[in-house]
Amino acid sequence: MGLSEFDLITRYFGQDGALDQCRSDVELGIGDDAAIVNIPAGQSLVMSLDTLVSGVHFPDNTSAEDIAYKALAVNLSDMAAMAAEPSWLLLGLTLPQADADWLEGFSRGLAQLANQHGLALIGGDTTHGPLTVSVQVNGLVPQGQALRRSGAQPGDLIYVSGQLGDAGLGLKLALAELDIELSSQRRQYFLQRLNHPTPRLELGLALRGLATAAIDVSDGLLADLGHILQASRMGASINIEQLPLADEVRGLTEQWWCMPLTAGDDYELCFTLPPEKQAQFEKTIRAMECPCRCIGRIDAEPGLNLLLDGRRIDSENLKGYLHFD
Amino acid sequence: MGLSEFDLITRYFGQDGALDQCRSDVELGIGDDAAIVNIPAGQSLVMSLDTLVSGVHFPDNTSAEDIAYKALAVNLSDMAAMAAEPSWLLLGLTLPQADADWLEGFSRGLAQLANQHGLALIGGDTTHGPLTVSVQVNGLVPQGQALRRSGAQPGDLIYVSGQLGDAGLGLKLALAELDIELSSQRRQYFLQRLNHPTPRLELGLALRGLATAAIDVSDGLLADLGHILQASRMGASINIEQLPLADEVRGLTEQWWCMPLTAGDDYELCFTLPPEKQAQFEKTIRAMECPCRCIGRIDAEPGLNLLLDGRRIDSENLKGYLHFD
Repeated sequence: MGLSEFDLITRYFGQDGALDQCRSDVELGIGDDAAIVNIPAGQSLVMSLDTLVSGVHFPDNTSAEDIAYKALAVNLSDMAAMAAEPSWLLLGLTLPQADADWLEGFSRGLAQLANQHGLALIGGDTTHGPLTVSVQVNGLVPQGQALRRSGAQPGDLIYVSGQLGDAGLGLKLALAELDIELSSQRRQYFLQRLNHPTPRLELGLALRGLATAAIDVSDGLLADLGHILQASRMGASINIEQLPLADEVRGLTEQWWCMPLTAGDDYELCFTLPPEKQAQFEKTIRAMECPCRCIGRIDAEPGLNLLLDGRRIDSENLKGYLHFD
Repeated sequence: MGLSEFDLITRYFGQDGALDQCRSDVELGIGDDAAIVNIPAGQSLVMSLDTLVSGVHFPDNTSAEDIAYKALAVNLSDMAAMAAEPSWLLLGLTLPQADADWLEGFSRGLAQLANQHGLALIGGDTTHGPLTVSVQVNGLVPQGQALRRSGAQPGDLIYVSGQLGDAGLGLKLALAELDIELSSQRRQYFLQRLNHPTPRLELGLALRGLATAAIDVSDGLLADLGHILQASRMGASINIEQLPLADEVRGLTEQWWCMPLTAGDDYELCFTLPPEKQAQFEKTIRAMECPCRCIGRIDAEPGLNLLLDGRRIDSENLKGYLHFD
């Protein structure tokens, strides 16, 4: 990049910027060939990287603030699913041009979420090219306490947090594919669920020592629960009348369960819990602003049974079911 | 991505792929929401991320193998400049489509360099979009032994490794901007220096406890030495007749020093060494296949003096000089 662009980038992402959080475990942040961090004794490092591409993962007219927020949120959601506490991030930002307003909005969106969770921006790269955002997030977890996809056991209860299908409905609104009456408040709610998902970090930490497996619902519940079942070599039965749904989502179509089971982008957690931990879990989350609902049970027999009021329904034609075998 | 593309990606970058190196410090690699690694006691973690964009950082017709090799090499060069030993990488790969031949070449290029240095691919993301490669590399260094840009002291000797301007000449060849006679062997040599730079990892490790500052030469010596001077708040005098140059580079123009001082992509190391460490350093590197040349000295007075046979030459018009004040 040229000198003025270089200066712009430095202003928003350099030392002393809003994202240069003071953390004692950061020995060297932005401004050298690489960053240096120190991991506390007894902690494992949890690492994820997600890329969002303009026109693929968000409409081209999405605001810089929303793009930044979401790029970080989807990575923090991965941290939540691992029961990790996020600590530092690196940013790979590819931009058609360095525009001050855009960069200001982007850094504001990133700082909003990063500062809320005490994350420091410690490095990265800014390049010219089609708008693409890669965020690499790191988190800490006491050794042996991270949650994986592979630990589900027969008889474990299957939970999901929040509501499913909200982001899916938000996407239909954003793409003007939906013809329903909505108050501006409700409309705003669903769009926020799409653009500003809440990474369930507090819930993730609360699941340490309780849950046997966890994943974040990014590709739709069926696909993501499918990953747990595949990694754990288990099956499951889901009572779809138990799915936590907004009234608008439940009222969408006759087969109201299809969208919330298959739409992505909710960034809720799906996790499994041994029945004997249920009471302790329910007590733990009572103080949290994150409702969780038991929607089914892990089976030793592979395969996924979708039950509506106890009757099996056909799941073959559901979208998002592709990655599940 | 659809099912078949998902399968392709998994084949080349998934568990049991050529890049899934067995490292005892990787607790959980590819295949979950995030990877889990354990950092040995007494070690700091060094983290870098670089993005390469098609048509910006490499011509659109560059082979997949060369793209992968270079994307990793430029990050490993950052590790070398910090005196870190690389350990794990995450890959953010944005692709117009998942093509088996392309992916095979890309994974081969990545594996060639990763396996050579014992790096494990532990995570990342593959998405649809314009060809963009983000590599996030991590390395280990004993606490307190990483090299920074900020440690240069008055009187320190300034060294560079290898030769400067080779990649610059290679780029002119690649772009058919050069009209000189070259044997096919020499032509190949310069193109290799552009496409397959050698990260100076062994040299970086050898500099622990000896060098006071280091940087890798990615943007041209003047710009990168400028970063050391700025971070260290020092000046420097460079004897340009000492620059290590190929005969072809020296013969390019009357002002032969311009290109090798300003062209990027050499990925050599530039570092500073106290005079009392020189003998020990020269002894240390004798066994290495990496020649190093003393090209000047750090001055307490800010500013960069370019000397040709003792006479000062004007540096104002040199490209790449932009980031230096």
